[in-house]
Amino acid sequence: MADSPQSALVALLDELRGRLPAAAILQGPAASIAYGSDNSRLVGEPDLVLLPTRHEEVQAAVAACHRHGVPLTARGRGSNTTGACIAAEGGVVLGLERMQRIIEIRPDDRVAVVEPGVLNGELQAALAPHGFFWAADPTSAPYSSVGGNLACNAGGPRTLKYGSARDNLMALRAVDGQGREFRCGAAVTKNSTGFDLTRLIAGSEGTLAIITEATLRLTPLPEARRGMRALYDSVDGAAAAVARVMAQPVVPSALEFMDDRALDLVRARGLELPKRARGLLLLEADGREAALDDACAALGVAARGSGLVDWQVAGSTAELESLWAARKALSPALRSLAPDKINEDVVVPVSRVPALLRRAQQLADEAGIPIVCFGHAGNGNLHVNLMFDRADPAQARAAERCLHTVFDSVLALGGTLSGEHGIGVAKRPFMARALDPVALDLMRAIKRQFDPAGILNPGKLLP
Amino acid sequence: MADSPQSALVALLDELRGRLPAAAILQGPAASIAYGSDNSRLVGEPDLVLLPTRHEEVQAAVAACHRHGVPLTARGRGSNTTGACIAAEGGVVLGLERMQRIIEIRPDDRVAVVEPGVLNGELQAALAPHGFFWAADPTSAPYSSVGGNLACNAGGPRTLKYGSARDNLMALRAVDGQGREFRCGAAVTKNSTGFDLTRLIAGSEGTLAIITEATLRLTPLPEARRGMRALYDSVDGAAAAVARVMAQPVVPSALEFMDDRALDLVRARGLELPKRARGLLLLEADGREAALDDACAALGVAARGSGLVDWQVAGSTAELESLWAARKALSPALRSLAPDKINEDVVVPVSRVPALLRRAQQLADEAGIPIVCFGHAGNGNLHVNLMFDRADPAQARAAERCLHTVFDSVLALGGTLSGEHGIGVAKRPFMARALDPVALDLMRAIKRQFDPAGILNPGKLLP
Repeated sequence: MADSPQSALVALLDELRGRLPAAAILQGPAASIAYGSDNSRLVGEPDLVLLPTRHEEVQAAVAACHRHGVPLTARGRGSNTTGACIAAEGGVVLGLERMQRIIEIRPDDRVAVVEPGVLNGELQAALAPHGFFWAADPTSAPYSSVGGNLACNAGGPRTLKYGSARDNLMALRAVDGQGREFRCGAAVTKNSTGFDLTRLIAGSEGTLAIITEATLRLTPLPEARRGMRALYDSVDGAAAAVARVMAQPVVPSALEFMDDRALDLVRARGLELPKRARGLLLLEADGREAALDDACAALGVAARGSGLVDWQVAGSTAELESLWAARKALSPALRSLAPDKINEDVVVPVSRVPALLRRAQQLADEAGIPIVCFGHAGNGNLHVNLMFDRADPAQARAAERCLHTVFDSVLALGGTLSGEHGIGVAKRPFMARALDPVALDLMRAIKRQFDPAGILNPGKLLP
Repeated sequence: MADSPQSALVALLDELRGRLPAAAILQGPAASIAYGSDNSRLVGEPDLVLLPTRHEEVQAAVAACHRHGVPLTARGRGSNTTGACIAAEGGVVLGLERMQRIIEIRPDDRVAVVEPGVLNGELQAALAPHGFFWAADPTSAPYSSVGGNLACNAGGPRTLKYGSARDNLMALRAVDGQGREFRCGAAVTKNSTGFDLTRLIAGSEGTLAIITEATLRLTPLPEARRGMRALYDSVDGAAAAVARVMAQPVVPSALEFMDDRALDLVRARGLELPKRARGLLLLEADGREAALDDACAALGVAARGSGLVDWQVAGSTAELESLWAARKALSPALRSLAPDKINEDVVVPVSRVPALLRRAQQLADEAGIPIVCFGHAGNGNLHVNLMFDRADPAQARAAERCLHTVFDSVLALGGTLSGEHGIGVAKRPFMARALDPVALDLMRAIKRQFDPAGILNPGKLLP
């Protein structure tokens, strides 16, 4: 681009005014601030915010940004925790929040076709009367969009049994970095027809293409669910039980873990738990009503073992809610205690969960920074929370060092950086450590093919 | 390459002699013929056959081919039906059959790490004592390799419930077209760390990279299975039942279909079936023994409907075998009747299965070529068999025309070319019709990044 950034923007805006309705173009400090940060609290303000309502407007916007060499960052609802949708290099934020049509629900084919701005929670509500759900169930479901869920390959507790966003995606309509429209995949559950571009784009955080329509794979709603809670007298006891549960055939629809510090936090908020409990598992089984007794019994057998203090099966919805109360109380407790905490989203093979938890404890002791671990233990996906005060420079430095060692430990255990949050800006510096250099080189090469001018979400994911 | 093909080969051979053991290098007509065709009966003879036993030898072979500009086609056991592993442009066939170590089985992590030459059936046998299986279950399992299964994203009846080869792959060690080694993915069930190269390589038929080690996701063996058979008085009745079964929550572990012509073929081989039966479904439920009665009852309710002639649930293994006898008798019957038959592996959304079957019948009538349809109906994955005599030029031409129309119909119904066999040479001419031109352009661009000299399996998959 021969243009200066400023003159490129002026030319871009000129062009866009002819192609997008005036209401879709936002300029000025208010818009830049509103669309310049996300749930990571990182900031990168755009020069221009575009809020298209149709595929054609997305295509026009990307094509114009490509021509004028202006960075373009796609954004769902900004609920991500990695800075993936801040405008790290300025330019345009393309908010997809107004593309919220549910185009089609086809129960016979177990398929829904949606625009990217549809909220996960809205989609689930629309699917329920048909007897289906979409498997991705992040905590942010009520306010995060399907497009954002796909961009970072979001998961949640149910991922254990039903797979992540990427696993439940069949086909896409999208726009590449040159503004070219394409479709890939098909609304079928089996496909051996060329390279799997669909799953390549899922999890690419808007760096390869902008999704304008997604064909999602649906799962039948289970007839019934039942929750269980196991308490152990040590973190090790709970971690060992995770491996036992996952080594037997009944796959729980959730297997969540909380360590001793997490339990102390919710105790401090008034939740009553047996004093001896130092590790907690929440399990859920779902399926046919007639099969649940047997499934819960099998999970109970696996959960039993050294250090089990208490085992409860919820007999009613109220009991279920009381069992999950500890998990629900945890996030606010963490936030209020350490608003600047680092919440990492690492994942290790299930058999290495005990080793990771021991290592985290050791690192916390060494650094003098409390670490609270909880998360989707059945997938080996743990949220490792470093509790510190960013205002204290010594603590901030110690936390940063500690974080590096956590990642090194995770990688040494055969794990990886992120299970469901993605990389964005926050984990980008660690990618070269986590990934093979040739694999990284191939990823960069793929990126250049989809986006030769490098305008799509620059400064993210790939180092 | 300035070298002529012949001098390039001489130079290549010179270089390889220093890097691979003599026993790994095969030359001469016997080797070229043995490794120059596959189950497609297409022929493309290599100049040289390499049978490495270690990753380092694969890497040396690919690097040398890259340097000398010699085509290299990876091969498992040649059981594919699309010509995917013939040496379409001569050069080297790299047979991976001697790389057959099962490196690791880790039941706690539900993971196995294998070399590509391990046979699917051998792997299943090794996993069974641990209580696990690998989901890909092609009919060729006893004699097809895991590497080949991954290369064409193989499936089978169980794919319906447990996913295909690609869905059950976690990580790879591989060699790209420049001979560079890389690892991608991780032995975890949740991963949002960069682009998903692992699943991009699965199904790429050896055109992007050579797999030298695969980390597979394992599934617990079900405690029990039960088979069911439903007979209908019309193909339409059976097809409608498929959609009903797939619209309710109990996912069968198999849902196979046979049309009226298929039933006539197995009747002609002496199998007794009620006279009124013109369409058949075989269903299987699996899981906990305690849950099976209920699951089979739910499937029975869904199977019941207009045109049901007979419903049987197998009470014993012997009864199960007798129910599946029709399906087992079919393939040999087809082969003996029309050795040159075209067996296509199309896939449509489940709700479109009835339309596809009606269209196939219409096309058969118009072309005067019998078409027999059967297959994995729960995935909408049908094997459409055009029965003709290749020796009769008029029939051969009519079959070719008919095949084009079958593909057009499948695409018009929102389906795609292949559900589990892949593209290879056989379906390559149809790819431009099946895929979006921009998507195809992106696939070609990706190919150039993995394999800049275009040596990996040239003449396959991408037109």
